Amino acid sequence: MPVEETFAKLCLSGAPPSDSHAVKSLVFKPKTAKTATPIPIVVVALQSTTTPSPLIAQVTSLKDPRLARDELFKTFFNCNSAKEFTLAYLPNATSEFKLLMDSNLAQLDGSSDLQLNDTLFIKKSELCKYLTPFESSRQVVDFSQEVKKEEPKKKAPKDKKSATTTPSQSALDDAKLIGITVDKSKDFPGWYSQVLTKGEMMDYYDVSGCYILRPPSYAIWENIQRWFDERIKGLGVQNAYFPMFVSSRVLEKEKDHVEGFAPEVAWVTKAGSSDLEEPIAIRPTSETVMYPYYSKWIQSHRDLPLKLNQWNSVVRWEFKHPQPFLRTREFLWQEGHTAFLTSEEAQEEVLQILDYYAGVYEELLAVPVIKGKKTEKEKFAGGDFTTTVEGYIPQTGRGIQGATSHHLGQNFSKMFNLSVENPKGKDEPRVFAYQNSWGLSTRVIGVMVMVHSDNKGLVIPPRVSQFQAVVIPVGITKKTNDEQRQHIHDSAKDVESRLKKAGIRAFGDYNDNYTPGWKFSQYELKGIPIRIELGPKDIEQGHVTVVRRNDSRKYTVKLEELEDRIPEILDEFHDALFNKAKELFDTHRVIVNEWEGFVPALNKKNVILAPWCGVMECEEDIKDSSAKKDDGEELEQDDKSPSMGAKSLCIPFDQPDLKTGQKCVKCDRDAINYCMFGRSY
Amino acid sequence: MPVEETFAKLCLSGAPPSDSHAVKSLVFKPKTAKTATPIPIVVVALQSTTTPSPLIAQVTSLKDPRLARDELFKTFFNCNSAKEFTLAYLPNATSEFKLLMDSNLAQLDGSSDLQLNDTLFIKKSELCKYLTPFESSRQVVDFSQEVKKEEPKKKAPKDKKSATTTPSQSALDDAKLIGITVDKSKDFPGWYSQVLTKGEMMDYYDVSGCYILRPPSYAIWENIQRWFDERIKGLGVQNAYFPMFVSSRVLEKEKDHVEGFAPEVAWVTKAGSSDLEEPIAIRPTSETVMYPYYSKWIQSHRDLPLKLNQWNSVVRWEFKHPQPFLRTREFLWQEGHTAFLTSEEAQEEVLQILDYYAGVYEELLAVPVIKGKKTEKEKFAGGDFTTTVEGYIPQTGRGIQGATSHHLGQNFSKMFNLSVENPKGKDEPRVFAYQNSWGLSTRVIGVMVMVHSDNKGLVIPPRVSQFQAVVIPVGITKKTNDEQRQHIHDSAKDVESRLKKAGIRAFGDYNDNYTPGWKFSQYELKGIPIRIELGPKDIEQGHVTVVRRNDSRKYTVKLEELEDRIPEILDEFHDALFNKAKELFDTHRVIVNEWEGFVPALNKKNVILAPWCGVMECEEDIKDSSAKKDDGEELEQDDKSPSMGAKSLCIPFDQPDLKTGQKCVKCDRDAINYCMFGRSY
Repeated sequence: MPVEETFAKLCLSGAPPSDSHAVKSLVFKPKTAKTATPIPIVVVALQSTTTPSPLIAQVTSLKDPRLARDELFKTFFNCNSAKEFTLAYLPNATSEFKLLMDSNLAQLDGSSDLQLNDTLFIKKSELCKYLTPFESSRQVVDFSQEVKKEEPKKKAPKDKKSATTTPSQSALDDAKLIGITVDKSKDFPGWYSQVLTKGEMMDYYDVSGCYILRPPSYAIWENIQRWFDERIKGLGVQNAYFPMFVSSRVLEKEKDHVEGFAPEVAWVTKAGSSDLEEPIAIRPTSETVMYPYYSKWIQSHRDLPLKLNQWNSVVRWEFKHPQPFLRTREFLWQEGHTAFLTSEEAQEEVLQILDYYAGVYEELLAVPVIKGKKTEKEKFAGGDFTTTVEGYIPQTGRGIQGATSHHLGQNFSKMFNLSVENPKGKDEPRVFAYQNSWGLSTRVIGVMVMVHSDNKGLVIPPRVSQFQAVVIPVGITKKTNDEQRQHIHDSAKDVESRLKKAGIRAFGDYNDNYTPGWKFSQYELKGIPIRIELGPKDIEQGHVTVVRRNDSRKYTVKLEELEDRIPEILDEFHDALFNKAKELFDTHRVIVNEWEGFVPALNKKNVILAPWCGVMECEEDIKDSSAKKDDGEELEQDDKSPSMGAKSLCIPFDQPDLKTGQKCVKCDRDAINYCMFGRSY
Repeated sequence: MPVEETFAKLCLSGAPPSDSHAVKSLVFKPKTAKTATPIPIVVVALQSTTTPSPLIAQVTSLKDPRLARDELFKTFFNCNSAKEFTLAYLPNATSEFKLLMDSNLAQLDGSSDLQLNDTLFIKKSELCKYLTPFESSRQVVDFSQEVKKEEPKKKAPKDKKSATTTPSQSALDDAKLIGITVDKSKDFPGWYSQVLTKGEMMDYYDVSGCYILRPPSYAIWENIQRWFDERIKGLGVQNAYFPMFVSSRVLEKEKDHVEGFAPEVAWVTKAGSSDLEEPIAIRPTSETVMYPYYSKWIQSHRDLPLKLNQWNSVVRWEFKHPQPFLRTREFLWQEGHTAFLTSEEAQEEVLQILDYYAGVYEELLAVPVIKGKKTEKEKFAGGDFTTTVEGYIPQTGRGIQGATSHHLGQNFSKMFNLSVENPKGKDEPRVFAYQNSWGLSTRVIGVMVMVHSDNKGLVIPPRVSQFQAVVIPVGITKKTNDEQRQHIHDSAKDVESRLKKAGIRAFGDYNDNYTPGWKFSQYELKGIPIRIELGPKDIEQGHVTVVRRNDSRKYTVKLEELEDRIPEILDEFHDALFNKAKELFDTHRVIVNEWEGFVPALNKKNVILAPWCGVMECEEDIKDSSAKKDDGEELEQDDKSPSMGAKSLCIPFDQPDLKTGQKCVKCDRDAINYCMFGRSY
């Protein structure tokens, strides 16, 4: 068939690419009067995207679209059947049709490989070119959006009571629709996307790899900022702001360093309608932005130490699969950049900052981490050594880098001439400053969500949650009279205001249009740490019922003890989250001394502590060897990287005892220490 | 001369452009052994840049450069004299030379017009092209940088006392060099640049129009953030973060709006070495970034009001002359975006926010402002009306827009379909939300500096200053013994720590290498609000001496009253700054009812309250007519805009009484209110 052939020319020849995105093309037929010609709807979507017909109806304004039968394919596309249909048939169309493109697909880079109908491979950019003639009928659709429902049919309530006591059925339907519909243990990426969007932490954005931080996640970031900022200021660090733009000349000054970032740098080349004289980069990190000025400002050893930090956003145009919080093209972070006269001072600070990073994870986010040093292969390009906190995602058994604190030694100071006269005297050689840089990003929020949240929605640790407690009046029935209802509401509002006065981030939900049950689900979805129920019986007995989000554990708290007990309950909640996560990490961090145990342990979702020789080639060998599917065990089905090899995560500061003469887990060299390996993000 | 002609071809023909930058080209000859060939140094700089020879010596590593005599021009460039020399002679050079380009010049846009040696006009981009062959010998130099001095000759002090009591002469020399050398009243732009850089608030950056916010200015921003953030959160506003990138499709959705910003939008077209499929804009403001999602999130009137704010940076690639804080290509700000069900709620908020903006200026920065409404001509493109706080810069007599709070009406909500079902019932038309947007930027810092600072350096109002007080031990002489010295230091440290405990941002300077006098100048330069002196006599009498920065007024404060008196003194200081600035504004805001008084009043550095008809053409006429130099009075010599016309600043809420039948100041229509006009930033 000639049509098929033309299309095939666009497609890739040779071996199929290893990490292509499966794409489906579906055709829907809307309900149409028998006398009218139907307008078919062609949907091009990632295999993993569900494309509900009510949503298709909404975005096309066509009625009741159903998957088309073979007949339509014949008359309309001159194609034998739905099964045979591919996008190659589009030019055959006998009349108008609509073309919906999945926003997940639209967001992919042009260079992404797509797999169409199992057999054809094509670059996304080529597909877009191919679809250009159909531009006018084309529409990009976010299939994850909720179907806009009609407003709940709120019959103008003649009797106010009945309106308040019997929430409309549609509200209950809402509750089902807005809940999480994917199981964390079965479809982890799908679950992650749902808890984030339905919990209203984040939304997808129409520029690929960029996401919207909605108030609940931004508030978490603000709480982290407050905690960390106070501590670094205590060390004498001052905040500053450097421009987001870097000239190419400056960016490229430190060659090793820029090599690591160059492929991901975004370039501004135009302003208004004028081309810039030379392209200007958006900072991927600020070493080269800042250090020329450090060199200018530091004129004498009395100008040291210089300790600056900035809270900003940086851009790394990664071409790997983006993931909210974990891998995004723009992200918020802090970057500290310090310069010292002596190596000792600098190294002391590197570790102090690492302790604070561990504190952010463990004391705020209730996520256990392991502190250690990166191997030479994994360290920051251009630095002397990198220290890191490493976390663990139980569901996938993968390690995740939490935050890093780098000792740069004198590499950058020599490059940027950041030097001072030797305090020992003019005849001694000039001293180049010893530098550190350290950064913690909004990635921490993604790790927190992955570790704690569940099939009911988000679980947010109380110390960072935007709100810590929601007060909900309960026990209002048809028999409750106005006065009683008022009394319950007033009592609940009193509880709310007492909690706020005590410094607890509390709010109340007194909306009579929803049942308490509906509210419970809502705030479970959003991860509010505790809910405080107050009904007639509670009031009678002078207490409230407190239910914590993670395990629905109930507490009865006497009204007079509110201000004392609620903070305690929040702390217990924090500890419970941390301990559960720690137990999972501890039991999935196993010592493996012999290679034959390595891959099987990995496949059981463990990270591994193994004796290691410290040689870079051996590290690469471990990665390659653990990536093969050559062992008998069934491999974990991880969507992105089914046979991902194990990387070194860190050399933990806290080391198991190394026996004398212990060999490396992989080669026959002597081990020099234990290294933590794992599949990772 | 052929050389001259070739060069002339590059230059512009036709009438000289109206706002070109005067450029000088100088040639220096370094000290050279008589037997050696000298290496001339060609300096290309803005006329206004001073190019000190010690700095030229430093950056070229050549010895003692002096302005070259005619002789050198003859032998080296085949040019008759220094007077005749232009850059056209460069290709004549008989051997190696150095070419230094002023960073102020390098920072200009390619499209800027330059005026060389009074007669030649050339585009900056053409000049750069012309200089390309000399690239290897070319160097961009920041002539405002301090000459790197040798470390103070600190002879290893055998007698510690003598070292501490007689600071080296070089420290005193430093004091002179680092002080402000330009008079605020004589060269306001030069003075502004010096107080900012020498006071260490800001530094120039190698991307044009971008500046570095150093800790003292960033701390001011943090203090403003804290104050304002707390207040808007009190109104139920929540913080969020939206991506900095916008697709062109979304950016261009609201045509009026984008038209206002399009010429200034920076476009990313490349990532790594790949071209993007379509260019992506960097937000100049976030209306079009955010409102598509508002439309998605707002499903019912119960989702209103929606009140989000972000603290971020935006980019407007202005081609006008950039100025630190006042007009920069990237700047920090907050942008609030709110949506309401009713117009009333929205309009109430617009004014509430404006009050907070006035509060930032008056209560924090001690800068008086006038609240009012912008005219139709000056309002935010796409909105219904704009409210504003307007400030005044006494030195130039110009008004300056402080911050704006816009009521967008339903324009954007209709464009982005931000609508909900009518609460009155399904049969009523859907209701489009009423929206506001409001923003306050780091411009406030520039206004504050211009208003308060003086020829000794910065004057920073105490409520926003990074540090509020510096403690300095005084009265240590050669006769002071170690024990006495220790006692003074200990007492001073005790004062510092008591102040800190009382919540005052204090620090001490106990460095013995500098005299108190040197320290006084230092902290005056940096604008620390008060210094607290403590010497043997003070200790004896149980008090400290407090000197405030603005007017050197001295207070004697009993030691036991420190915690009470210092906050009072800081408040008095704030009031003194505010009152002085207010008096200047009040006496330079004059009512002018007849046109003949208008321009003369402007020329006396006033802003004007004039009865006005409200017609846009009349407003334009006022601007044109006040720009002409057609009156007898001498015009203010304002570097950038010697004959700038008066714009409408705002229609003040607080109106003078308008007589019935009062005519417009400019035309013969009836006046509808008083409008404030002025030359402006």
